[in-house]
Amino acid sequence: MITRYRIGTPFDMESVVVQLPVHDGALPGWETDAQNKCLTRTLAKSDIVYGLGESVRGINKRGWLYTSNNSDDPHHEETKHSLYASQNFVIVFSPDTKIAFGLYVDAPGKINFDIAYTDPDVFSISFEDFDADLYLVEAGSLKEIVREFRGLIGRSYIPPKWAFGLGQSRWSYMTADEVREVADSYDEAGIPLDMIYLDIDYMERYKDFTVNEEAFPDFEAFVKEMKDRGIHLVPIIDAGVKIEEGYPVYEEGIEKGYFCKKENGEELVAAVWPGTAHFPDFLNEDARRWFGDWYGFLTEKGIDGFWNDMNEPAIFYTADHLKEVFEGIRSFEGKNMDLRTFFGFKGLVASLENNPEDYRRFYHDFHGQKVRHDKVHNLFGYYMTRAAGEAFTRLRPGKRTLMFSRSSYIGMHRYGGVWTGDNQSWWSHILLNLRQLPALNMCGFMYSGADLGGFGQDCTEDLVLRWLSLGIFTPLMRDHAAMGTRRQELYRFKNTEAFRNIVGLRYALIPYLYSEFMKAVLKNDMLFLPLSFEFPDDERALTVEDQLYVGESIMIAPVYEQNARGRYVYLPERMKLLRFRSASDFDEEILEKGDHYVPADLNEVLVFLRPGHVLPLAASGARRVDEINEQDLTWFTFEGRPEEYELYTDDGISAIN
Amino acid sequence: MITRYRIGTPFDMESVVVQLPVHDGALPGWETDAQNKCLTRTLAKSDIVYGLGESVRGINKRGWLYTSNNSDDPHHEETKHSLYASQNFVIVFSPDTKIAFGLYVDAPGKINFDIAYTDPDVFSISFEDFDADLYLVEAGSLKEIVREFRGLIGRSYIPPKWAFGLGQSRWSYMTADEVREVADSYDEAGIPLDMIYLDIDYMERYKDFTVNEEAFPDFEAFVKEMKDRGIHLVPIIDAGVKIEEGYPVYEEGIEKGYFCKKENGEELVAAVWPGTAHFPDFLNEDARRWFGDWYGFLTEKGIDGFWNDMNEPAIFYTADHLKEVFEGIRSFEGKNMDLRTFFGFKGLVASLENNPEDYRRFYHDFHGQKVRHDKVHNLFGYYMTRAAGEAFTRLRPGKRTLMFSRSSYIGMHRYGGVWTGDNQSWWSHILLNLRQLPALNMCGFMYSGADLGGFGQDCTEDLVLRWLSLGIFTPLMRDHAAMGTRRQELYRFKNTEAFRNIVGLRYALIPYLYSEFMKAVLKNDMLFLPLSFEFPDDERALTVEDQLYVGESIMIAPVYEQNARGRYVYLPERMKLLRFRSASDFDEEILEKGDHYVPADLNEVLVFLRPGHVLPLAASGARRVDEINEQDLTWFTFEGRPEEYELYTDDGISAIN
Repeated sequence: MITRYRIGTPFDMESVVVQLPVHDGALPGWETDAQNKCLTRTLAKSDIVYGLGESVRGINKRGWLYTSNNSDDPHHEETKHSLYASQNFVIVFSPDTKIAFGLYVDAPGKINFDIAYTDPDVFSISFEDFDADLYLVEAGSLKEIVREFRGLIGRSYIPPKWAFGLGQSRWSYMTADEVREVADSYDEAGIPLDMIYLDIDYMERYKDFTVNEEAFPDFEAFVKEMKDRGIHLVPIIDAGVKIEEGYPVYEEGIEKGYFCKKENGEELVAAVWPGTAHFPDFLNEDARRWFGDWYGFLTEKGIDGFWNDMNEPAIFYTADHLKEVFEGIRSFEGKNMDLRTFFGFKGLVASLENNPEDYRRFYHDFHGQKVRHDKVHNLFGYYMTRAAGEAFTRLRPGKRTLMFSRSSYIGMHRYGGVWTGDNQSWWSHILLNLRQLPALNMCGFMYSGADLGGFGQDCTEDLVLRWLSLGIFTPLMRDHAAMGTRRQELYRFKNTEAFRNIVGLRYALIPYLYSEFMKAVLKNDMLFLPLSFEFPDDERALTVEDQLYVGESIMIAPVYEQNARGRYVYLPERMKLLRFRSASDFDEEILEKGDHYVPADLNEVLVFLRPGHVLPLAASGARRVDEINEQDLTWFTFEGRPEEYELYTDDGISAIN
Repeated sequence: MITRYRIGTPFDMESVVVQLPVHDGALPGWETDAQNKCLTRTLAKSDIVYGLGESVRGINKRGWLYTSNNSDDPHHEETKHSLYASQNFVIVFSPDTKIAFGLYVDAPGKINFDIAYTDPDVFSISFEDFDADLYLVEAGSLKEIVREFRGLIGRSYIPPKWAFGLGQSRWSYMTADEVREVADSYDEAGIPLDMIYLDIDYMERYKDFTVNEEAFPDFEAFVKEMKDRGIHLVPIIDAGVKIEEGYPVYEEGIEKGYFCKKENGEELVAAVWPGTAHFPDFLNEDARRWFGDWYGFLTEKGIDGFWNDMNEPAIFYTADHLKEVFEGIRSFEGKNMDLRTFFGFKGLVASLENNPEDYRRFYHDFHGQKVRHDKVHNLFGYYMTRAAGEAFTRLRPGKRTLMFSRSSYIGMHRYGGVWTGDNQSWWSHILLNLRQLPALNMCGFMYSGADLGGFGQDCTEDLVLRWLSLGIFTPLMRDHAAMGTRRQELYRFKNTEAFRNIVGLRYALIPYLYSEFMKAVLKNDMLFLPLSFEFPDDERALTVEDQLYVGESIMIAPVYEQNARGRYVYLPERMKLLRFRSASDFDEEILEKGDHYVPADLNEVLVFLRPGHVLPLAASGARRVDEINEQDLTWFTFEGRPEEYELYTDDGISAIN
C-alpha cells in the first residue's frame, strides 16, 4: 500500500506514473518540523536502512550523511556526501519487529539524509526547500515494498540485448583506425566484444552532434563497417552546447530561446570541454523535443546507442564567476601568503568548478514557471535523458536504443540506465560497485554498471580480473579508463587466457542474465538482492555486505582484496558452489548453510547455485551476443528442474510496450 | 648474514650503525642494469614481498608501484605511490622454497619499487641516481632476517613510559583554557589521558620556539599546572623558520648561514604556515646542533615531548615559482578556456605546492659537500629529528624525551618514532593503520601509530570506537583531527561508557604492551607481526591481511567495517578468545585452529591468547600511566604460566644506554 503525503507545494517532477490522492496530515512515524525543514524518527539499534541508489558506503546506509545534490566529483571516497545521482528512496527495516516501510521523497532540490550520523539513534531528513511529495510504501516484505514502489514509478528502461555484451571504452579513441585496432585486437585475442564507446574526442571540438571528419572520415560508412563485424559504436553526448557562430545546434538554440537564462534574460555562459557553452533547458518540453531530435544526426548514420554525460550539469566555470576569480587573484599577487591567505587563494581558484553559487545564476522554464536552477538541480540529468528517450520513439520507432546517463533522478529509469560515473582503479571500488547495484535496483535503475577496472588512476591486471568476477554479472558491462591512465583494454594484459575465459563466461551466462533482467523489469523485481531481502529472519544474513543474489538461481561472492587467494562466504542456505575457470572448466561442490572460506584463484569465479534452482549456460565460443545459441544450453542444477525455469527470449531489439 | 653491495658512489646516510666491507660484484639474484638504472628479478607466483614501512596497500606489497619520495599528501588512497616516509627495506619470501631474504636499499633520492606492477611476475627497483648501498640480509626465518637487519641499523628509539598513555590532539587547541577544558572533560568523563598536543596555533604566528603569550600566558606555569595533574603538553615543531626581522631563530640562522641556499648563494624562500620561511640545513652538523639547541626554549619551560612536522619538507610555494605562476595566470585572463586550457590553468596553480622543481632549487652542505636537495630529499625529516634527538641528550641528559616525526628515513628510528601523518576518517584507514604497523617494525620504527579516528574528514562514533579496538594496542595512541572537522575528543560521543571502558582496557594492558615493546626494542624484534611471520608454513596464514600478533602472547583482529557485528578470523593455532567489554568485563572461549566468524559488538574488543602464553592485566581505574599498579596484575592464561612471563619494568623516564 502506498500513501502520498505532502509538505509545502512541490513541483510535479513526473517521477511517478500513478497519481495518488494526497493524504491529509503529517507523515506517520516521523516528527515533522516545518521550522527546521526536517523530518525525524528514532532508530532502534538493530534497524537497517536500505536505498539511496548510487551513493557511498554500505548496503546498509546507516551511519552517514547522504546529500542529494548531483555532483561531478570523481573521488568517490567514503566520506563524500554526494555522487552524480539523487535517488531519494529508502527502506527502513526493523529486524526486531520484522516491520519495514519504504519512503520516497520526491523533491528535486538539496536534501540531507542524516542516517544515524549526527546522533547514532536518529534518522533525519532535512531540506533546503520544505516542499516534497512523500510516498510511504507499506507491504509484507522487503521485496514486496520494492515491487509496490516500482509500480508507482513505472517500468524500467529496456536496452537492446546486444547491450549485455562487453563494451570497451576509453577517453578517448582518437581516430577510426584506433577504434578498428581495438576491435581487431579483441578479435585476435579471442575475447568477445559487442560495443566500442566513443568519448568526447570523436566530436569536432567537443560539439554535440558533430563528428570530427578528419579523425573519423565518412562516419556513416564507418558505423556500418563496424556493425557489419558485429560492433556497435556508442558515442557520448554532453549537456553543454558550444557557443560558436555557424554551429547549428548553438544557433537554433539561441534563436528559439531554448538555453537556460540568467535573471536578466541573457543565456548563462558556462564552460565545459569546448570552452564556453550554453545549457539547453531540458525542463522545458519544447527545448527537450528540439534537443532530442538532434540525436537523429547520429541515428541517421546508423548509431543505435548513446551515453549522456556531464549532466549534473558539470561546470568548469561560468563566465561571470571567472571574472570575479581573476579579479580576486590580483589581490593576492606579490603578497606574502601565510596559512590563511594561501588557503584563501587556493579556495578562490577551486571555487571555479561546480560552484553552488553558479547553480543559482540561471533559470528554467518548468511547466511554464520560471524556476531557479538550484531548486530543481537534481532533475537536469533526468530531463536530458528523457529528451533522448522520448526522441528515440520518434527517431527509431519500434526499436530499442541503448541509452545511459551519468546524472539521474528517479523517473529517469524509464528512459535509460546509469553508469556509476567516474570511479577509480581502487580495490575498494569493486565493493562500492557491488553495494550500489541492489540500491539502484530498488530505485528502478536496472540497466547499470560501473567502469570496470576503474576510470581514474592506474589499474593492475589482478584488479581488472577480480573486478570482472563481479562485472560479468552486471547488465552494463563496460571497461572504461581516463586519459593518461594505464591502458586497460582486456587484451593488453599478460594473462590473455584468463580474460578470454572470464568474458566467455559472461557470454555463456547471457541467456540467464537477460532472462532474469527482463523478468525483473517486467515484474518490478530486483535483479541484485542483498541476502537480507531473501532471508530477513537470518541475523547473519542481515550484515553481509559483499555478496548478492543475482536473479532467482544464484548468489555471487567476488574476491575484492589484492593478493587474496579466496574469501569468506556466508551461505544462508545449503548451496552448490560452481567454481568457474571458464564456461566449460569448473568445479562443483555442495556447501552447507553457514560460514566458509572458499579458495578462488585469480582466474576463478565463484557462483553459488540455490537449492531447487537451475542455471542455464550457453555454449562458449560466441564472439558477439548475436552469436549466442540459446537452443543449446547446459543446465546446472541443484535439486531443481530445467523444465521449470522460465527462460525469457525475444528478438532483443524490438521495443516492448 | 648481511652482505653489503654497492652501485655507484652513494653518500653515507648514517642510516646504519655497523660498517660492513663493500662486497665486490653485483647483487646476487638480481639483474643489474646500470644503463636503465635498475635492479630486476623474477618473482614466482606465490612469492610474497614485505616491508617498505609506511606505505599504501597490504602487508604483502605485491602488485603495486611504490615510490620513495617523501610527500606531504594527506589523501592516502590506494593508488598513491608515495606517503610521508621512505623506508627502503623489503623482504622477499618464497613459500614454495621457504627461502627468504631482506634487501635494504640505502639511497636518499627517488626510488621506484615496482613490485609486480608493470609485469605481474617481475620485481624491479629503479633509481634516479644509480648510487646506493645495498644490504642483502640472509637468515633462516623471517623474524631472524628482521633481527639481523635491525642489528645493522641500530637500536630503536625508546619513549618515556607515559607516552603509552592516551594523547588528545586537534588542529588546534587555541588557548590554555581550551586545553584545560579538554583535560577537565576527560577527567569528568572518567576516560584516562596522559598527553594533550599543541598544534601550530600555540606559537606566535607559527614561529618555531615561540609561544603565543596572549593565548597561553605564563606558559611555564601552565606546563607545570598541567603536569601537576598528570598531563604532558606536547608541542609541534615545524621545519620552516619564519622570515621576520627581530625573530632570533631567523636572525641567528641567517647570521650563521644555517639555512638552505640556492645555487646563487641566497637563502631559498619557501612558504609554509607562517608565510615565507627558510629551511634549516639539517644535513649540516653545525646547523643541526644549533637548531637542536633551540628545543631548549621549550624544555626549559618543562616540556618533555615534541612532534616534528612538515619535514618532507612540505612547501606551499617558493617565492621564485610563485612569481612564475602569477605571470602564467595572466596569460589565461580573459581567455575562453576549453578542456586543455582550463586543465593547464588548474595545473599551473596546483604546481605551487610541493613542486618537484622546487626541490631542485636549493642545496645542502652534507659532509662538507654541496648537494642539491632532490638528491637527498628523503633524509630531511630524519635529520631534523636527529637534530632534536641529539639535542635532548644535552638538554635533558639521562632522561627520555617524547619525539616523533611525520617524515622519516631509516636511521631516524634511533632518534624518534613516527606517526603515519594526515590520514582520513575512513574505515579503510583502520586497515591501513594495521598493515603499516608490522612494516614499520621491520624498518626499526617501533614507537608509532596513526591519528586514531582519522585526521581529515568527519568521523562517526562507531568509526572511532572500532578504530580504538586497534589503536589501544599501538604504542603511540593519539586521537587527532583537522581544523573544520567534527569534534573528535572521546568525551564528545554519546556512548561515553564504551570509550571509558576501551581506553581503560588500554591502560590495563600497558604492563604487557610496555614489556613487549621494550623487549622488542632491546632484542631487535617486532612488536606487531603478520601471521606469516609466526606460521610461514601455513598457507592460509600467508594471506591474512587483517590480523596481527602483538608481542609474544596475543593476536588481535579488530572489526573495521561499518555496521558489522563481528568478523571472520583465521586462527593458525588453537587459541583462547578474550572478548573484552572492559578490563573487568569479558568472555572467554577456546577456539580451535581454523576459520571462525566471531561476533563483536561496537563496545567489544577481540583478543586471542596463544597456547602456552599469558596476558597480564593491571587493575582498572588508573587515570594516568603513573597510576597503573604493576604489583596488582590479573593473569589471563591459556596453558601458560605467569611466573614464566618476563615482565619488563623500569622507572619509565630514565634514558637507557
